[in-house]
Amino acid sequence: MADLDALHEALLLGDRTALGRAITLVESRRAEDRAAAAELVERCRPRAGHALRLGITGIPGAGKSTLIDALGLWLIGQGHRVAVLAVDPSSARSGGSILGDKTRMERLAQRPEAFIRPTAAGGTLGGVAQRTREAIVLCEAAGYDRIVVETVGIGQNELEVDRMTDLNLLLLIAGAGDELQGIKRGIMESADAIAFTKCEGEARDRAEAARRELRGAIQLLPPRPSGRRPEALLTSALTGAGIAELGARLEALHAQDLASGLVDERRREQALHWMEQSIDLGLQEAFRADPRVAQALPALREAVRRGERSPVDAAAALLALFRTGGAPLP
Amino acid sequence: MADLDALHEALLLGDRTALGRAITLVESRRAEDRAAAAELVERCRPRAGHALRLGITGIPGAGKSTLIDALGLWLIGQGHRVAVLAVDPSSARSGGSILGDKTRMERLAQRPEAFIRPTAAGGTLGGVAQRTREAIVLCEAAGYDRIVVETVGIGQNELEVDRMTDLNLLLLIAGAGDELQGIKRGIMESADAIAFTKCEGEARDRAEAARRELRGAIQLLPPRPSGRRPEALLTSALTGAGIAELGARLEALHAQDLASGLVDERRREQALHWMEQSIDLGLQEAFRADPRVAQALPALREAVRRGERSPVDAAAALLALFRTGGAPLP
Repeated sequence: MADLDALHEALLLGDRTALGRAITLVESRRAEDRAAAAELVERCRPRAGHALRLGITGIPGAGKSTLIDALGLWLIGQGHRVAVLAVDPSSARSGGSILGDKTRMERLAQRPEAFIRPTAAGGTLGGVAQRTREAIVLCEAAGYDRIVVETVGIGQNELEVDRMTDLNLLLLIAGAGDELQGIKRGIMESADAIAFTKCEGEARDRAEAARRELRGAIQLLPPRPSGRRPEALLTSALTGAGIAELGARLEALHAQDLASGLVDERRREQALHWMEQSIDLGLQEAFRADPRVAQALPALREAVRRGERSPVDAAAALLALFRTGGAPLP
Repeated sequence: MADLDALHEALLLGDRTALGRAITLVESRRAEDRAAAAELVERCRPRAGHALRLGITGIPGAGKSTLIDALGLWLIGQGHRVAVLAVDPSSARSGGSILGDKTRMERLAQRPEAFIRPTAAGGTLGGVAQRTREAIVLCEAAGYDRIVVETVGIGQNELEVDRMTDLNLLLLIAGAGDELQGIKRGIMESADAIAFTKCEGEARDRAEAARRELRGAIQLLPPRPSGRRPEALLTSALTGAGIAELGARLEALHAQDLASGLVDERRREQALHWMEQSIDLGLQEAFRADPRVAQALPALREAVRRGERSPVDAAAALLALFRTGGAPLP
């Protein structure tokens, strides 16, 4: 554990390289790394929890990166240290990551007060969410007090993100294709605030109109646990218009939720969800790591695919192998 | 297994009471029922697989029940036997079921060629989906050759349904609140066909306009695995307009997918998904059924909730209890 001690110590000092290595460790799907990762997260927990955890979602093209770039700089200007993480289970399929080559957050990436981490590579939504939770703890222990969790709003991701954040910001662009992008009920229901992006020139008028139209839709939503419904602001990362207002609004909402005890209450519920997800993932990991399961799986999958064996029957056979207790193979 | 023999035999004869009891068995979450349920499903599998499995989704108020009532009667008129199942994990929360008291499918419920089953009670989406898969097999073995899987379109349900059906129909109503209801990308991506419901009188004109608007949105979607994109039809369960056209369209799509081998290919992939989901559920069931886990869980949950113990640490402690092999408690 000498390595872990050194990593932990460097991380607590705010060393960004150490933080990056620590996140790589929690993202590892190798069974032997999981124990070290869990140990590291446990050690960091007492130093975590003080940050504002902010989810930012929007469809591809909504301007997430440029908005985060601008908002992140504003937060730094307020004296904060900003970490940006991404949740995107679909990236394994498309081969890309949300944050890509970081160049889309050019200004933020150059600041020593910022830490930008591309998405965890692939896996199930539950698995990626779990790694992100752990990464949040690491970032907080490393001294970051504003954590941005970026996700592509495609339906389920933002519900998962809602289970790890204090506040959620939905980004919309006004104009063509509105129906397809933002007015998805599930996403709207997870939003504490909404920002129209790219409100420059004529787009500003379109956004004004879209904001008016949105008001009726918002009234149809159930209120957030805070009792509030989201309000929409107009922003432009290009001109900087609306960025300070957005930042101040988010800070005010967070202060309100801290004072009311809502942040604590949310986090208690989130801890239970985290535990349940840890159990599910732990079961799946133990199952995959079982040598007899690993040996039997390929042939059984093929038999199921060819219809020679039923899925339920094959699953039961594998579970029986697993449940005999993990004794070594003959 | 004498009971199971009798149940199986009655079910194969198409006895609806037996089918109802069999589905109750697969829906049971009692550990001792799971083995019997799995056995029954296994016995039924050779007689299953011949049906068209049709998913029908739409938001509450989209007219799912009345459309299914009308479409079901049309299918019966074509010589089919129709079973209607529902997937709705949220019903545990709201206390209601999708199909409610069956009175919303009044005409279909009175037909001997129809079997209508209210939703499985609660549980996780994966669990409910799994039970529905098993119920499909039972219905097919009982001689139903058109299986309708009804779901409320709220984001993730329809993706799960897409993993157990051959074709999916999305229901939309034209008019106020369009943005909030149907044009959700995830739902649209799962649709093989779209039907506007309640197209009577003036609503018909609105639906015509909505259908035209929808065309552009549909072109932005990735095509279905069949290579097709959904087309939208106008229907009225009240007047019967468009019901036969819709039925014929669905039958034609299915015939095409049978001929191309797509149905077989989909089902092979679905079998693998079914196996994976069976494993996950089996792991969770075995975990919950473990007496030491059950004994330790309440105190650990409370400690996590109060912040005295970390979620990951509590999960690890429970997993360690589980992995020691299920020996009896001291």
